[in-house]
Amino acid sequence: MSQHLKKVAILLSGRGSNFVALSDAIQEGKIPARIVLVFSNRPDAQGLEKARQRGYPTACIPPEGRGREPYDQLVAEALQEAGAEVICLAGYMRILSPVLVRAFPERILNIHPSLLPAFTGLRAQRQALEWGARVSGCTVHFVDEELDHGPIILQHPVPILEGDTEESLSERILVHEHEIYPQALRIVCQGKYRIQGRRVIVDQA
Amino acid sequence: MSQHLKKVAILLSGRGSNFVALSDAIQEGKIPARIVLVFSNRPDAQGLEKARQRGYPTACIPPEGRGREPYDQLVAEALQEAGAEVICLAGYMRILSPVLVRAFPERILNIHPSLLPAFTGLRAQRQALEWGARVSGCTVHFVDEELDHGPIILQHPVPILEGDTEESLSERILVHEHEIYPQALRIVCQGKYRIQGRRVIVDQA
Repeated sequence: MSQHLKKVAILLSGRGSNFVALSDAIQEGKIPARIVLVFSNRPDAQGLEKARQRGYPTACIPPEGRGREPYDQLVAEALQEAGAEVICLAGYMRILSPVLVRAFPERILNIHPSLLPAFTGLRAQRQALEWGARVSGCTVHFVDEELDHGPIILQHPVPILEGDTEESLSERILVHEHEIYPQALRIVCQGKYRIQGRRVIVDQA
Repeated sequence: MSQHLKKVAILLSGRGSNFVALSDAIQEGKIPARIVLVFSNRPDAQGLEKARQRGYPTACIPPEGRGREPYDQLVAEALQEAGAEVICLAGYMRILSPVLVRAFPERILNIHPSLLPAFTGLRAQRQALEWGARVSGCTVHFVDEELDHGPIILQHPVPILEGDTEESLSERILVHEHEIYPQALRIVCQGKYRIQGRRVIVDQA
């Protein structure tokens, strides 16, 4: 019985390490998905070059000279033309406007380097260190119209060690980002979940 | 070389399970401390009865008819008369006013059933469930003049499971409260730490 492959688009702005983790898991058959587009707002994003090397369709729209909503309208159209059913933000350094979020309701995933609701926004690892937290981690969640806010699919804790720097903590969290993002995308692509209020209930297999 | 035993007072309002965990660890010689007073705002607190059975000095001042600051002034005096050097809140269901916090600056510890700064205030376990968090935990921190806010000594993560209720999650977190509260009190009584801003730096032994 062949399983339907969900069409996934990935949005990135940087090196795309989470994109690579997702791509690897898909190629290894762990996620019933097919990557139909890798999109960036930055033509020089290393992740775009990696996507080309892996043979994926890529697209880039520079935001310069465009307003936030008109830009996001173009992005939504590019994603729809590619047939994307699920969107994964993977180091995409733009806050999505409602026009993009509403085009894919409960179909956009993001990964954030903290245990939300703690330490939203930029440089979450540094925020955790400065707050003196002893545990941080990472979160995969659905994107809604508030920043780093939507229903949580998976989280993983990471201890903060004496002597940790922003760099060392970020590296240790990243290891777990690369684990839980593919796991979360698998849950979503298999469709074995439902959202109740803020809670994502995963069906036990 | 005999080590100085820190004089510890414990404040509780309920069954006092964290008091019992601290008392056990002290009696087992794991913490260089001596309990000089177990105090409650509630004469019917089960923890008070346990303290009497264990032979500790106890005190209770009912708050009825007293303002917050006058009450806390009486509590501070009782703690000072007992010679308390370190105060442990163990399910003490009153918010401390500045008069009490300032009487023991960076000498009052509290345990909270979440990974602060997430889910401050009452029923933190229920808040975590309703928020759809996948990881919560517990935090031992110094008390400052903001609720559930002071510098963190230790935290421990606890996964939230499918089907968890407020009761089941609270029970699993409590197991780790009983572990990290004695560990944190040990650090404080040994004096092997320093506070830099919000960060508690523990000297590596």
